[in-house]
Amino acid sequence: MSHGKQFTLYALQAGPNPWKVAFFLNELGLSYETIYFDFQKAEHKAPEYLKLTPTDAFPPSSTTRTTTSPFVASTTRESGAILLYLAEKYDTEKKYFVTSEADRFAVLQWLFFQVSGQGPYYGQAAWFSFYHPEKLPSAVERYQNEIRRVLGVLESVLSKQEWLAAGKLTIADLSFSAWNNEVGGLLGPEFNFEKEFPATFKWHQRIVAVPGVKAGFALRKELTGY
Amino acid sequence: MSHGKQFTLYALQAGPNPWKVAFFLNELGLSYETIYFDFQKAEHKAPEYLKLTPTDAFPPSSTTRTTTSPFVASTTRESGAILLYLAEKYDTEKKYFVTSEADRFAVLQWLFFQVSGQGPYYGQAAWFSFYHPEKLPSAVERYQNEIRRVLGVLESVLSKQEWLAAGKLTIADLSFSAWNNEVGGLLGPEFNFEKEFPATFKWHQRIVAVPGVKAGFALRKELTGY
Repeated sequence: MSHGKQFTLYALQAGPNPWKVAFFLNELGLSYETIYFDFQKAEHKAPEYLKLTPTDAFPPSSTTRTTTSPFVASTTRESGAILLYLAEKYDTEKKYFVTSEADRFAVLQWLFFQVSGQGPYYGQAAWFSFYHPEKLPSAVERYQNEIRRVLGVLESVLSKQEWLAAGKLTIADLSFSAWNNEVGGLLGPEFNFEKEFPATFKWHQRIVAVPGVKAGFALRKELTGY
Repeated sequence: MSHGKQFTLYALQAGPNPWKVAFFLNELGLSYETIYFDFQKAEHKAPEYLKLTPTDAFPPSSTTRTTTSPFVASTTRESGAILLYLAEKYDTEKKYFVTSEADRFAVLQWLFFQVSGQGPYYGQAAWFSFYHPEKLPSAVERYQNEIRRVLGVLESVLSKQEWLAAGKLTIADLSFSAWNNEVGGLLGPEFNFEKEFPATFKWHQRIVAVPGVKAGFALRKELTGY
């Protein structure tokens, strides 16, 4: 770890999941160096990465190596676990996390829904739209419907309140933004986010305007072209 | 909540996820009443359930309503969040959880991998094998390969250690057992769990022998026939 930064973030450049972690690191003002993997070259299955984490999933979770904490020489993997780790350990002012037990589990429920109910299903839509060797319209349709289902769940809540939990912007809201930014590409030109899910659209716009999120998306665009 | 038990567990009878919670409630000796939903009748999308949780996912997360804790009148949903909640709040002897920060995040990483990397992918294998309106062999194959990938990840770790994290049986191990019990049905008769993933098979056998897990699987078989 010769770069002198607090963290090393190992990330698939093109995958939305690692950016969730980057957004939060940005917002907490923590320094980090990002090591990118190229999915097309299967670099996430390279031995030096598998030494850090055995879970070479696609879409892969992020892995951070903390260099200045008690977690030295260890690694935290799974973007959801990393967000929770950073929140508990570094968000000392509770800017994006919470103090009470009820609020904490309200946030955690959404975080668990994001990692289990949003990411994988949006990811399958991407898979069958862009990567699967065979064209399977009914599979694409299944996952496009799943995206709409997730957006409907969010809309049912966000039409009544500004943020998902605890009355404020938390890691739960941040965590949804990386994949929600892909809905245009995944649902095609006939999809009108603002019209179909107005409260969720406005919420998403509020999140992407957060400086650390905005900077993350800008860097991603610079690196990947989208 | 007139049943006088500590919890109400809302669960899809046929879905593996709620059973993770039942196993842990059994092991902690907590009393609960289970309200089952029938997936075929879309009861998980009924208004009385959506009042408890807006996330009507399939495979759905469990929802518990705690009747005797400070969480009264609230609900915890998402099986991963429920396991964490029960562990923090009711596993006072740290029977299936841990105390140190490093161990805690080691467990949480596996729990996050289970909810995001195992459940959804095994679930898609089930979907394309049994529920999708069209036969799509390459989609079935994709998810069967994903199951083998997950089992391979587990094998790479469990061939070197007895449990996933912290040197003992934790909620992380418990959480994998519900879906891993389905691998026979999902991978077909040519799959030999014991031969292909021997360490993972032995680990799974150790988990299903835990009394609360064994009781859960026995009840499930009684209710569903499998």
